[in-house]
Amino acid sequence: MASSTNITHQNYQINKSDRIRVNGNQPCIVWFTGLSGSGKSTLANAVELILFEKGISTYVLDGDNIRNGLNSNVDFSTEGRKENIRRIGEVAKLFVDAGLVVLTAFISPFKSDRDMIRTLVEKGEFFEIFVDCPIEVCEQRDVKGLYKKARAGEITDFTGISSPFEKPTQSELTVRTSEMNVKDASTRIAEYILKTIAHEK
Amino acid sequence: MASSTNITHQNYQINKSDRIRVNGNQPCIVWFTGLSGSGKSTLANAVELILFEKGISTYVLDGDNIRNGLNSNVDFSTEGRKENIRRIGEVAKLFVDAGLVVLTAFISPFKSDRDMIRTLVEKGEFFEIFVDCPIEVCEQRDVKGLYKKARAGEITDFTGISSPFEKPTQSELTVRTSEMNVKDASTRIAEYILKTIAHEK
Repeated sequence: MASSTNITHQNYQINKSDRIRVNGNQPCIVWFTGLSGSGKSTLANAVELILFEKGISTYVLDGDNIRNGLNSNVDFSTEGRKENIRRIGEVAKLFVDAGLVVLTAFISPFKSDRDMIRTLVEKGEFFEIFVDCPIEVCEQRDVKGLYKKARAGEITDFTGISSPFEKPTQSELTVRTSEMNVKDASTRIAEYILKTIAHEK
Repeated sequence: MASSTNITHQNYQINKSDRIRVNGNQPCIVWFTGLSGSGKSTLANAVELILFEKGISTYVLDGDNIRNGLNSNVDFSTEGRKENIRRIGEVAKLFVDAGLVVLTAFISPFKSDRDMIRTLVEKGEFFEIFVDCPIEVCEQRDVKGLYKKARAGEITDFTGISSPFEKPTQSELTVRTSEMNVKDASTRIAEYILKTIAHEK
């Protein structure tokens, strides 16, 4: 069969339903939002570990794997920060389509950006986790030394100092990391996710 | 434990090795390159189906899920096309990091772009599949009506007509879709991939 019509569009493609059937759980975006130093990445990794050990396919998107790669050409201007979050949302959507639970750890200070991401996926596929921590505590931790630089004026538009953080009003879950340790907070989030996405195989 | 040092960086994160151990296979990028109408998407989907049925975690990136989403703000200028492929490569890399076999179906006419993607991942994680088909055959198929538009001058910089296609010189595999049907071509590619990425669980 060597005719020019050999390669025509095939109807059968693996789709999200096939992946859900095999994986035994719904895919979703677990979107952590909060100030720098509030504990987003730590929690995302801790929650991933719990889910992974339950046999769930997971992936974490954070500054480490996004800023030097896909978003290396995005600056920190207002427009750039919007584009940064938009791309992360679109990539997270692809991971959901691929059947994974994708956890994202970005400050994402603007409600409009977060709400936009929510609309990218289906109802029930987006969980906003507000990592709530007083700025005084974040600043005291200052793991990356960024608050010091922001106070010294070396970083402009720094969320919480010189740029607003719009607190979520419709988060699926809020964890107060100044009042809870990592183990308790991550367990609480993982239990919530597991309960919500569980399917029978 | 409600001190400000509750949330500090945890050393343990799920990494690619953990995913390989659980999945039982190496992740990789299967990069299809070839003219419009050569059969890239059809083959990517057919190969995915074979791999998926073997229990391998897979995903296909193609125009359908990239152009309207992540790359909706990329134009078709020389610079735009380069950025288009760069972003696809970076996303493919994230999927590899997540442990998946990611298949991509884009014309990707320039050798330098394809070679750049190869450098993004580790040795043995990038397979370039040249979907080789004479332009006469592609043009005769003209599934999307694009060749007609290109000949009429309605599309500029159309690969094979008004813009070059740089044939791969170091592809892992070449399939001639004017001489092979979809079943045979996809089986050949899938067997090659399976043999190369197989691990014992």
